[in-house]
Amino acid sequence: MRRIRITVSYDGTEYHGWQVQPGLATIQASLEGVLSEIEGDQIEGSVHVDGSGRTDAGVHALAQVAAFDLTNPIPLPNLKKAINRLLPRDIRVLETAEAHEGFHPRYDATAKSYEYRILRAEICPPFDRRYVYHYPYPLDEARMIQVARLLEGEHDFSAFAASDPADGLGRSKVRRIFSSCLTRDGDLLIYRVRGTGFLKHMVRNIVGVLLEAGKGNLGPADIEARLQPGCTIPAGPSAPARGLFLVGVEYQK
Amino acid sequence: MRRIRITVSYDGTEYHGWQVQPGLATIQASLEGVLSEIEGDQIEGSVHVDGSGRTDAGVHALAQVAAFDLTNPIPLPNLKKAINRLLPRDIRVLETAEAHEGFHPRYDATAKSYEYRILRAEICPPFDRRYVYHYPYPLDEARMIQVARLLEGEHDFSAFAASDPADGLGRSKVRRIFSSCLTRDGDLLIYRVRGTGFLKHMVRNIVGVLLEAGKGNLGPADIEARLQPGCTIPAGPSAPARGLFLVGVEYQK
Repeated sequence: MRRIRITVSYDGTEYHGWQVQPGLATIQASLEGVLSEIEGDQIEGSVHVDGSGRTDAGVHALAQVAAFDLTNPIPLPNLKKAINRLLPRDIRVLETAEAHEGFHPRYDATAKSYEYRILRAEICPPFDRRYVYHYPYPLDEARMIQVARLLEGEHDFSAFAASDPADGLGRSKVRRIFSSCLTRDGDLLIYRVRGTGFLKHMVRNIVGVLLEAGKGNLGPADIEARLQPGCTIPAGPSAPARGLFLVGVEYQK
Repeated sequence: MRRIRITVSYDGTEYHGWQVQPGLATIQASLEGVLSEIEGDQIEGSVHVDGSGRTDAGVHALAQVAAFDLTNPIPLPNLKKAINRLLPRDIRVLETAEAHEGFHPRYDATAKSYEYRILRAEICPPFDRRYVYHYPYPLDEARMIQVARLLEGEHDFSAFAASDPADGLGRSKVRRIFSSCLTRDGDLLIYRVRGTGFLKHMVRNIVGVLLEAGKGNLGPADIEARLQPGCTIPAGPSAPARGLFLVGVEYQK
């Protein structure tokens, strides 16, 4: 049995997120269907694909990492071609590699990076409409840039997490954020965040809070209050999925 | 009665081209529906929109120009906002302007520009799949760049035109091409052409011929033969619609 690691890019617009859900189109289900076909086994779900984490409905990935077991001895370059030939064009496998037997894309990940794109132009070009959150209204961007930095470090992110049954009761919501940075690039306001791991809706909730800061509804003290251990402030408005990209996942070399 | 000129950008993927066709989604029909609503007249098609020319199913526009008559005295900035609020997000009006009574976006145009995007990368990113022709196979790009220049000047483009009932019998197929240029920009091979006017499928047929030259199937002499008056060589393979963008339309100032 081989363990194969793949890097996958997808346009999440047409999918109900990463994770398999009965009767719904998901990225994981698309990959498992195609790989089961390549494995030569017509029983649905004969190949199970592990991802580095779930992405929500409508969220995109530049480089998600996943892994699966395969008995088929097909060479890696041919495997990549075969997968891409069978997949819909909004999911592409960028890389295929042999991994060690125990490799798990979620448990072995040391860091993940996300990017959130807010378009500040008056009009959203038709070609960008699926890939940005169009917000042409006034925002105090200087204040947003300032408070974005406050997320860096190790914090209890309960106030930035949607309740998640998969987390289990009493599971720690402490995460370490290595960098949290908002920058203006032309008409785009881009939030980039890199950390050890992220809770459900965490990035979209952070961006929601940054937008509230930009509208003048929240200040630095409000963000700091939300980062205190045991904070019970409920998660604020979540920024729309379409602006969010999983940029990459890191592993120990 | 006012005459209004608009600049429109659209993602043509979901449309059966510019021109109204019964029962099919088209750009012109979308605009006419929205403008009739703004005019306050519920009779379908009460506002007629003239375009600078038709674009085929799946072809995009960065800046198509259109015009229509309107009795509603709504100020121009509000008109733009109202149109964009009612249009689907894959069509955007970028500009609205008052035009003189007799303005016609087709008959008054002095030049049009198109761009065709060929992606040369091994894998087509999911986010680009609707906006490029992915051709990762070998091509003699130097030869393509050389023959692209041969289209410049005034020629009979019969060998690059699809038969078009709208053209009428014996209508001249002579057009003047001001510039015809192929360039490499990163992974993209971009064909840019500017001329007085274009026949049906003309840009896609030119790109089809350039691709044949790149594959070694046609040389400079073959292109020149196709540009001779009275040439009866049938139009070659048409490059796919999704790589084509109407970039802009020019008028006398």
